[in-house]
Amino acid sequence: MKIEKKDYNNFPMNTDPSLVAEIENCLTELPLFVKFSDQKGKKGNLVFSPVATNSYLEGKLHPQGWSKIPVPKDYNALGIDIDFGKKNLLVEAQFSNYPFFANNTLRATILFNAQQPLPPMGKANSAIIITKCKLFESANSTLYYEQAIKQMDLFQQYSPINLPLRIIGLTADRGVDQNASLVTFESERYSRSVSKKEDIICRVGTQESLREIEKIVRID
Amino acid sequence: MKIEKKDYNNFPMNTDPSLVAEIENCLTELPLFVKFSDQKGKKGNLVFSPVATNSYLEGKLHPQGWSKIPVPKDYNALGIDIDFGKKNLLVEAQFSNYPFFANNTLRATILFNAQQPLPPMGKANSAIIITKCKLFESANSTLYYEQAIKQMDLFQQYSPINLPLRIIGLTADRGVDQNASLVTFESERYSRSVSKKEDIICRVGTQESLREIEKIVRID
Repeated sequence: MKIEKKDYNNFPMNTDPSLVAEIENCLTELPLFVKFSDQKGKKGNLVFSPVATNSYLEGKLHPQGWSKIPVPKDYNALGIDIDFGKKNLLVEAQFSNYPFFANNTLRATILFNAQQPLPPMGKANSAIIITKCKLFESANSTLYYEQAIKQMDLFQQYSPINLPLRIIGLTADRGVDQNASLVTFESERYSRSVSKKEDIICRVGTQESLREIEKIVRID
Repeated sequence: MKIEKKDYNNFPMNTDPSLVAEIENCLTELPLFVKFSDQKGKKGNLVFSPVATNSYLEGKLHPQGWSKIPVPKDYNALGIDIDFGKKNLLVEAQFSNYPFFANNTLRATILFNAQQPLPPMGKANSAIIITKCKLFESANSTLYYEQAIKQMDLFQQYSPINLPLRIIGLTADRGVDQNASLVTFESERYSRSVSKKEDIICRVGTQESLREIEKIVRID
């Protein structure tokens, strides 16, 4: 997929560029995973698939030494694990509801300021939060890149956070044919195991972004 | 219900006590609403009912001049409305997933620091977040009072927020018979309309809190 990004608190100065490259290379190779929605009002529409995306990221990053990081006991009122960590970089892939952005950002800030060791990685010196852009139709109320940026800009203006942070948005060219992987799950609700993958051609958004209704449309 | 509370940033000095009394009087008159869970692993267990609790609070507070407050456009990347507001006090009843606590707290902090008018109320000078205590069995990953306190204590230690805030926890006497209202919904998922209410006697938690398995047990 294509990516957009915005940095806060001198992220590039505080981070090992080889670790960042490992994450961004993985994202540029990431296929667009879509599924049929089972939500009221969207039933049958193609939407971005967080489960298949997360599963792909785990499959690629774990062999490169990125681990799920358990949050130490004194901090786990903020949630029990962080998606990926290696050396001094924390990474969250956040495709869930929009309140997770404030939670993930504050949690990483607290672990950064506490200089808390986070085995099997070291102390965090920076974080990346991976999101999807608004042009993909998605489940209701899920976080999107443009919203994450607006939230972080509001934090910085009115209640600043000192964490060196890069927010990444997964995106695509608007209104042109592109490859995607259509995934089907064993059970509609709760299931995390993909039972079928089908290569399809689809379009995302429209060429005119200002008049856009976000959607993913199958072409083939 | 009974209540516990913890204050931050000189909440009582910054708040109109008559507004706080209206909220707390409403909470002490609030019945314990329970429902049968439809979650995997909890199916058929009695759990705290956020929908019936919110509906009761709206029914009592709206006639006293508390309104749902639309979040102004420049700030609504953080969510589109606040549960209740009157004069200068914001109130959230937060029984949803734990990440909403960081979201609600930062959102109120930003509106407070921006000194943003919030019609139909004025500018916020303080906030109350209402939660339920851990001794009630509840839906998975929902915020509880003790967790909200731990989160806020971590924020204050490592990334302080300046909002005058009271966190309230709804609670009950452990292991003794008490009245509750058992509610049933028209459809298990999504439904927000209560179709039936039944008065029951139940017990909450056990007398020994240290060995407690959180639960609500029907006695009658």
